[in-house]
Amino acid sequence: MPADGDPGSEAATRALLVELLGEFWRRGWVSGTGGGICGPADGGGLLLAPTGVHKERVRPDEFFTVDPADGRVLRSPERADLRPSECSSIFCLTHRARGAWSVVHSHALAAVLAGDVAVAEGADHLAIRELEMLKGIPGVSNVDTHLVPVIRNTPREPELVGQLAAVLADPRFAASRAIIVRDHGAYIWGDDVLEAKRHTEVYHFLFEATVARRGRHMEERA
Amino acid sequence: MPADGDPGSEAATRALLVELLGEFWRRGWVSGTGGGICGPADGGGLLLAPTGVHKERVRPDEFFTVDPADGRVLRSPERADLRPSECSSIFCLTHRARGAWSVVHSHALAAVLAGDVAVAEGADHLAIRELEMLKGIPGVSNVDTHLVPVIRNTPREPELVGQLAAVLADPRFAASRAIIVRDHGAYIWGDDVLEAKRHTEVYHFLFEATVARRGRHMEERA
Amino acid sequence: MPADGDPGSEAATRALLVELLGEFWRRGWVSGTGGGICGPADGGGLLLAPTGVHKERVRPDEFFTVDPADGRVLRSPERADLRPSECSSIFCLTHRARGAWSVVHSHALAAVLAGDVAVAEGADHLAIRELEMLKGIPGVSNVDTHLVPVIRNTPREPELVGQLAAVLADPRFAASRAIIVRDHGAYIWGDDVLEAKRHTEVYHFLFEATVARRGRHMEERA
Amino acid sequence: MPADGDPGSEAATRALLVELLGEFWRRGWVSGTGGGICGPADGGGLLLAPTGVHKERVRPDEFFTVDPADGRVLRSPERADLRPSECSSIFCLTHRARGAWSVVHSHALAAVLAGDVAVAEGADHLAIRELEMLKGIPGVSNVDTHLVPVIRNTPREPELVGQLAAVLADPRFAASRAIIVRDHGAYIWGDDVLEAKRHTEVYHFLFEATVARRGRHMEERA
Repeated sequence: MPADGDPGSEAATRALLVELLGEFWRRGWVSGTGGGICGPADGGGLLLAPTGVHKERVRPDEFFTVDPADGRVLRSPERADLRPSECSSIFCLTHRARGAWSVVHSHALAAVLAGDVAVAEGADHLAIRELEMLKGIPGVSNVDTHLVPVIRNTPREPELVGQLAAVLADPRFAASRAIIVRDHGAYIWGDDVLEAKRHTEVYHFLFEATVARRGRHMEERA
Repeated sequence: MPADGDPGSEAATRALLVELLGEFWRRGWVSGTGGGICGPADGGGLLLAPTGVHKERVRPDEFFTVDPADGRVLRSPERADLRPSECSSIFCLTHRARGAWSVVHSHALAAVLAGDVAVAEGADHLAIRELEMLKGIPGVSNVDTHLVPVIRNTPREPELVGQLAAVLADPRFAASRAIIVRDHGAYIWGDDVLEAKRHTEVYHFLFEATVARRGRHMEERA
Repeated sequence: MPADGDPGSEAATRALLVELLGEFWRRGWVSGTGGGICGPADGGGLLLAPTGVHKERVRPDEFFTVDPADGRVLRSPERADLRPSECSSIFCLTHRARGAWSVVHSHALAAVLAGDVAVAEGADHLAIRELEMLKGIPGVSNVDTHLVPVIRNTPREPELVGQLAAVLADPRFAASRAIIVRDHGAYIWGDDVLEAKRHTEVYHFLFEATVARRGRHMEERA
Repeated sequence: MPADGDPGSEAATRALLVELLGEFWRRGWVSGTGGGICGPADGGGLLLAPTGVHKERVRPDEFFTVDPADGRVLRSPERADLRPSECSSIFCLTHRARGAWSVVHSHALAAVLAGDVAVAEGADHLAIRELEMLKGIPGVSNVDTHLVPVIRNTPREPELVGQLAAVLADPRFAASRAIIVRDHGAYIWGDDVLEAKRHTEVYHFLFEATVARRGRHMEERA
C-alpha cells in the first residue's frame, strides 16, 4: 500500500496524500467531501486538495499548489472545474505559525464529541492525561496533562483564522499539534506528511479514549 | 477504486452503482439483501437493482431500467430470475417530487436509532443542529436547525408512498434530502449519483452524531 | 470479490465458503480460530472447516466432507494435521431438523450481548420486534414479534446438542433461523450458503439493534 | 492474503509479521507508530520491528534480529536510520519466562478500558469469566475465571520490566498469555506467530466483552 518512488519527490508526496485521503475516508475521518490534507510541493509551496469533491477520489494530478506566505495559487490542476479547498488559509496559517508542512483537517465524530467534553467541563480546551499514546506527540510524556485548544465553529472556514491565530500564540497550547473546532472536527499537523499522519492517528485515539472515559459524565451533566 | 471510463456514460453509472453498493455494504448501510440505490440510465430512465439479492454482489448488467413517470420496466437484465427492487415506486416518486436522479435506500442501524430519538422526543421529525456537516446539504448552513421527516414503517415498501408524498410536500422539510423510516432506515437522494453518495455520507454522520449526543436522554426517558 | 465459476459446483461452494470466512473474520464474527460455516458437498455431504485453525486462512482444499445423517467423515483434506470442526454434530443436527444446507457459527460480541439481554429479562429467548430487517427471515414480517431461543453454554460444543434438539423442536421457535448460545455466540442457518449469509447479516443487525435499544435497561437492572 | 512460501522459513515469518502489522493497524491495535510484534529468526534470535515508524509500513527487510538471552542486536537492517523497538527488553523477558517465540504489543483502546475496569474494581488484575472465547487460551475453559494481570504504566517501556517479571512469576497468573498495562495497552504472546495472533484476537474480544458488560458500573462508581 505505501506509495512507491523517491520518498522525497513531489510525485511521491502526491501519491502519499491520495493514499492517506483514501485511508482517512475508510476510517470516517474525512467524508461527504469534507476534510482534507496538505503536503509540501517542490519549491516551497503547499499541495492542496480541491474543494467540494469526494476526497478519496482525488487524483494525484488534481492538487493545487499554494504559496503558504499568502495563500496565492501558484499552480492549478488541468481540470478547470476545480477550486482550491477552503482550508487554504488555515493550512497556510498553521505552516507559518508552526512550520508545519502537512496539515490534516478531520471531520471525525470523535473530534466533535471531544469538543463536547470540553464544553461540558466549561473549558476552552481538552485536557488529556494518563495515556501512553501522549508520547506520540513530540515533547509530551505519558505523565503530562496535555492541553488541546477548543475553538468555536463559524459559518465559513476562513472565519476561523482569528481564533486559530490566538490559540496558536497561546503558551498553554505550545505543545499541541491539534486544534479542535466545536461541532466540526480538528486540524492536526506535523513537520512532514508522515508525521502529520502519526499525529492524526494519535489524536484520534486520544479523542476516542477521552470520550469513552469522560463522555458519560458530560452527558449526565447535560 | 473509482469507476473508469466516460463518467457520463450509462456503463460508467452502472460501474459506479456497483462500486457504491459494495462500499455501503462494507459500512453496514445495506445488508441482508436489503437497501439499494438507483441512478440515471441513458434516455431518461432510472437504473434499479434487483430485489432479494445480496446488493454487494449485483453485477453491472443486472440492473433494471424503469420509467420514473410511472415505474414501468423499460428494460430487464438477461437473468430471467431477477425482479426489480421494491424501492421502485419510492425512487420514482422522489425523482418526480425532487428531481433526484439517484436515491439511496439505507438500512443502517444509525438511521433506525435516529428515528428512535425523534419518537422519544415526541416529534414527527429529527431536528439536527450545531454540526458543521450540515453544510454538506445544499442551502443548509451550520447555524441552521435542519429538520428531517420521520415516517412510520409499513408492512410493504410501496405502502410508504402516501406518507412519503406528504412529507415531500411539507414546507418544513423542503431542505431535507433524506426521509427516515422508523424501525427501518432512510431514503437519501441527490441530483446525481455522486451527490447522492455525498448526502448519504453526510446524513449517516448526522444520524450518528445526533444519536451519540441525544440517544442517552431518549433511553433515560424510555 | 464473488467466487467465480459454476455457482452450483462444489468447487464454487468451497471458494464461496473461503470468501465468507474471510468476510466474517473482518467483521469480527469469527475470530481467534473460533466460529465457522458449512455448505453442501456433491453427493449429499456437508463441507466442514477444520478445527483450531484461523478460519480466514482456510484454503478451498482444506474442508472435510461429513455425512449429515451421522457426522461420519466421508472425505478428509490431504493435510494430515487437520481435524474436523467441533461444530460437526450441531451442523448435522441443524441439517436434519431444518433441512439447512449451510450453517454459520458466529462468535460475535453482539450475539453474546443479545444473550445477556434475554438473561436480564428472565427469558429463555430473545424477543425481537419493530424492525424492518425481520423481513429478511422467511415468513416473518416487520409487525411480528420474532422469538430466538437462547440456550446455556456448555464446556464442549457437542454437549449443546441436547438443548439444541429441544429448541429446534419447540413450536415457539419454528420461524427462527438462529439459536443464541449464552456467553458464546449463535448458530444461524439457511437452505443454501447465500441464504445462510443473508440470515447471518440479518440476525447480527437484529442483535445489534436490540442490544442498542434494550441493553441499557439490562445493565441498569444488573 | 496469507504469506506465501515455506511456512517455517524466516522469509515467511518476516512476510507474516508484515501482514499482521497491517491487519492490527487496520483494527486499531497498533497505531501512531506505537505497538508491534516479534517472531522467531533463524538461529534462535527474535525478529523485532524498528521503533518510531508506522508499523503497517514496515518492510520485510527492516526487522532487527536480537538475542533473547540479553537483547543484544545480532543483525540490523540495511537502512542505517532505524533503531530497534523499545519493546525489545520486554519481548526478550517474555520469551525467557514463558518460552514465547512471538509477542504482540497492542495499543488498543479496549485494552486501556479493560485496565480501567480493573482499577475501578480495586484489583491488580482483570477477572474474565463466562465467555466461550476463554477456550482460545491453552488450558483455560469457559467455566474458569481467568485472571489477567494489570500493571502500572511507566514513562519508558524498559521500566516496565520489573513489574512484568513479578507478574510473570506470580502463580495466580500462570495461565495468562497477556499482561495489561494501565493507560497503555497490553502484551500478548504465543509459542509461535500464529498462536500469538490467535491469542491477540481472543484477548481483544475478552477485553471488549468485559468492558461492554462491566464498564458501565465502573463509570457509575467513578
